[in-house]
Formats: sequence, C-alpha cells, structure tokens
Amino acid sequence: MSQPPEEILQILKKAERVLIATHVFPDGDALGSQLALGFALEAAGKEVFFYSEEPVSYILDFLPGSDRLQTNLSDDEVFDCAVALDCGDKRRLGEGADKLLCHKPFITIDHHAGHKMFGDISWVDEHRSSTGEMIYDLLRVLDCEISQDTAFCLYTAILTDTGSFKYESTTSHTLRVAADLLDYGVKPNEICAHIFDNYSKNRLHLLQEVLGSLSLYADDSVAFISVTQELLERTGTIPADTELFINFPRSLKTVKVAVFLKETADNLVGVSMRAKGEVDVAEVARNFGGGGHRNAAGFKIADSSLSQVKEQLLASLLPLV
Amino acid sequence: MSQPPEEILQILKKAERVLIATHVFPDGDALGSQLALGFALEAAGKEVFFYSEEPVSYILDFLPGSDRLQTNLSDDEVFDCAVALDCGDKRRLGEGADKLLCHKPFITIDHHAGHKMFGDISWVDEHRSSTGEMIYDLLRVLDCEISQDTAFCLYTAILTDTGSFKYESTTSHTLRVAADLLDYGVKPNEICAHIFDNYSKNRLHLLQEVLGSLSLYADDSVAFISVTQELLERTGTIPADTELFINFPRSLKTVKVAVFLKETADNLVGVSMRAKGEVDVAEVARNFGGGGHRNAAGFKIADSSLSQVKEQLLASLLPLV
Repeated sequence: MSQPPEEILQILKKAERVLIATHVFPDGDALGSQLALGFALEAAGKEVFFYSEEPVSYILDFLPGSDRLQTNLSDDEVFDCAVALDCGDKRRLGEGADKLLCHKPFITIDHHAGHKMFGDISWVDEHRSSTGEMIYDLLRVLDCEISQDTAFCLYTAILTDTGSFKYESTTSHTLRVAADLLDYGVKPNEICAHIFDNYSKNRLHLLQEVLGSLSLYADDSVAFISVTQELLERTGTIPADTELFINFPRSLKTVKVAVFLKETADNLVGVSMRAKGEVDVAEVARNFGGGGHRNAAGFKIADSSLSQVKEQLLASLLPLV
Repeated sequence: MSQPPEEILQILKKAERVLIATHVFPDGDALGSQLALGFALEAAGKEVFFYSEEPVSYILDFLPGSDRLQTNLSDDEVFDCAVALDCGDKRRLGEGADKLLCHKPFITIDHHAGHKMFGDISWVDEHRSSTGEMIYDLLRVLDCEISQDTAFCLYTAILTDTGSFKYESTTSHTLRVAADLLDYGVKPNEICAHIFDNYSKNRLHLLQEVLGSLSLYADDSVAFISVTQELLERTGTIPADTELFINFPRSLKTVKVAVFLKETADNLVGVSMRAKGEVDVAEVARNFGGGGHRNAAGFKIADSSLSQVKEQLLASLLPLV
C-alpha cells in the first residue's frame, strides 16, 4: 500500500485555487472523495471548484455539498492546480477532458486496476478499496481538519465502493479508516439508510419484474436478467433505479457470470457483467468494444435487440464456464 | 463499553472441561461466537462441548466446526463451568434451559438490550454490536491464541449481527475488531459469499413472488409482505429461505414499519416486524404475546388466517405512524 507522493502534498499545500474533477455519472466514491477533499482544502483557507460533466443522481443528492457541483466551467477560470479523482482513464472525465487537462499541474488520484496514466503527476494504488480511502490518508498526511461533513462524504465513498465492506478490496486498513471516520461523528446507519434504504415503491415493483426475467444456462452458471424501456415506463422508473440489481443473479450460489441487459432510450443495449471466480469478463467485454475489471465489466451495442445480444454473448460465455 | 469481569476470566482460566451453549435456531452471532470461544479454549488445552437445542441451518454450515454442535447432552456429563452466549433470556436456551443451568458456575455473555439476567455471573453489554465483538475482547484479555478459524467465526458473528456493518450498533470499536480479524487472514469476500451470495434459484423465485405480495398503507408508511405454505411448496423452498426478505419492504424510503407474515407448517401465523424511526414494534409485539427490540420484534398467533392477522395488526399500527 503506497502513501501520497511528496510532490502532490507540496502542490496542494501551496495552491490557493483548486479545481477538483471526477468522472461522468459520479458514483459514491467519486462524489464523496471529491467533496471531502474540497471541504478539507476549504477548511485550510483555499478556494475550491467542484466539476463533473454529469449532474448528481438523486441517489447521492443527500451528500452535503452535492449541489455545489458545476457541470460547466468557464474558459477564463484559472486554477493553481487541478485534481481528477477516481478516473481510471482520461476519457472518464467526459467530453471536456482535454480542456480540463489544460489546467496545470494536473494531479490524478485513483485506485482502479489498469489505470491509464494521464495528467502531470499521479497517485495510483490499486490495493486500495476506494479513492475515498486514499483521500483519508492524504488528508491525514496534509494535517487537514476533518469535519463531520468531510468524514460523512469519505465514509459514503468507502461504503459504496466496497458494497458495505463486502468486496475483496476490503482490507484491515479500509476498516480502520472507516473506524476513524465514525470517531468524527459519522452514524453508519444514517448513511446506509440513504444508500440502501432509498427504494421507491416503483423501484421495488421494477425489481420484482426484473427478477421475473431471470434465465439460467450451463447448469445455472450463467444468469441473465433484463430491463426494457417498456418496463421502465410501465413501472414509472428510470435507468438509475436498476442500480445494484445485477447483485441478485450474482447472489446465486451456482452462478459464475451474471449479465444484466438494458434497453436504453437511445436504442442501444447496455450490458453489465459480474463474474465470480475464474471467468474474466473484462476480456469478454473488450471483444464487444467495452471494458472494465476482471470481475465487473460492460459494453454498449447498437442496432441489436436484447435477444440478439443475449445470443451473441452466450456464445462467448458458454466456453468459459 | 465494558470489559470482561475478572471473575469470568478466572473461571475460564481454571476450567478444564467447558460447556458452551447458545440459543435455539442459532444465528451467525450465536454460532460464530460459540465456535470461536471454543476453539480458543481448546487451543489453551481445555476440553470443550458445544451445545444448542436446534441443529445448524444450512445457511451456517460453512462455519468450521459447525458439525460439532450437540443437540443432546447426557445427564452424566460434568463440566467445570458452562457458558451461555447471545441469549437475552434463559428461555432462549430452549426447553432444556433449567437442566443446562444446573452446570455451575454458569456464565452468561450477551449484548441484547433488555437482557434478563440468569446464571451465576454475567457480562452483558448492550453497547456492543454483537456477542462476537465481546468474545474477541475476552480472548484478547485472556491472551488466547486466535487461529484463522477462530477469526473466521468471529468475523461471521459480527458481520451477520450488523448486517455487514450497516446497523446502528456498528461502532468504531466494531470496525477495529473486524480489522484485527482480517489481519488474522480472514477474507471478507469469502464470508460474504457464504452469507449473502448463497441463493438457490428457487429462493430467488420465492423472493420474486414474495415481493409481489407487497401491500402499502397510510401513505406508504406501513408495508406488508407475506408467504404461504402453498408458495413454499410451489417454489420448492423452506422457511429459512425467507431470511432477510423483510429488508425489502424495510428498504422503502417512505416505510416506518415493515411486516412479514408467514404461514407456518403447524398452522400458526408468524409475524416479523421492523421499524425505522419512532415506532416501537416491541410494544406492539408484546400486545400479541411476542417480544423483541424497539426496531425488530415479532410474535406467533394461532387459529388465524394471514388476512385476519393483517387486519388486527393494521388496527394496532395505523395509530402509531
């Protein structure tokens, strides 16, 4: 496990105006890390700008400061440094990535395996559960004040990226950081209520219907679920409501690969895959023009129906299980 | 947060034959704590007997040593001391409680609020997330060897009783104990796979059908789900498969009380309730001859149909929400 490079500490200590950016469709780790770093730098007297190309989803708008994200950045803005958090690849910053990278020095802090280096100076540690865990260590080394809001955002970051400390990436260090954050006054059940107990009745209805779409292959080792535009309309839900649904087919004891097929509004089929054990779904996703991690990957495909995509994907998956 | 009483330490240090008992229908905290304490005492050269009136459910039979539980105890057995773990009330030991209590000195270690004292000497701490968290501290004070199996059982105990660190009872101490346990070589994702990813396809089908039974009252603040014997038969499942299903209606943002009605094989209706916020469901359960905690309680009722129980319960709940 690595520590923050001295050069990053020096840049952040000296900077007065800091831009903090994160990836498109910011998740809990992206947004929580971004806000936490920003709050701590503000507490140290700096001016902070929060940027993301996409607005915050309703699932995360409980985070303090989530209304401060800017989705547009004026060309005249000048910063002493810029930081990109939780982006494994510069394309994850969105269409404005190259413009963002003009702000120098450009720091990247990320925990994704297979991180593709970009910017001027990077701290990448794939042995960390989350970018939030890294930001906590950074703030401790910088000797920044950690307010209750800062701790709240960091706890959310770690909680969401570890699936509440369930994933392989959870280490004893992860749990000790989470313990420290509780000592700053964070109530774990309050954050969990926002993250896990925020279902609408429409979303629960959607879940029921999506579970009904379950189909199994190869001695129940490959599971598919799917959602159509018609189903979203009929249940009064939006694509964000399907988040984490793939964990249901994944939770089957026999399953080695779980697949979630999603019809999108722009006539694409979005595919999410989760693997347990030996199958490398990133490899499969790359064959369809996508990418991801060994055990969590995906792609999008045009001009295909759900059943066509399923058939092609089955042909790729069956030899692997 | 209290520490283990000196008297308990002395008794355990001196004892050569130890009986360790836990409650009927042992859950992860009961069984994990029991096995962990037993393994550690065995490593210290003692002879240990594990007792529970009920056999281990298939959900927990992955725990090392789970096949060592005895559901019968010969009258001739003599022990230097007996320990009851995770029992808030002597009745939780089952029908043989009084016979068990003849073994002296009888130690109780428990974390339940409203614990009703029994036995000769007790360590009760309701500020602990789990009995497992207490056993870890006990083993540290006793300076016992903590093997990987012991750590595995304790992690399972804490994980299951905190819903993977989601419940209010999770403190920074809980997380630090969990961190220590990972340092003994426990892999969190392995235990989580056993606990959370052990669904059969029949169980997932059952979940889908049970979600279909959702009904909501009082501006969606009271949610009911139910399962019938016919549904269990049709989906090829058993009552244990419904475990944690009540978390689905509980996860609705608007819900203050979630209720799960279960037809049992012996013609009873079993009722589980979960509350968020102010409603005290233990009080409601007591009016029906049951009990529990403020936010998790239940009861059983004879000679009633699901719809009759629902009607009576609604009459009790609606004034409270």
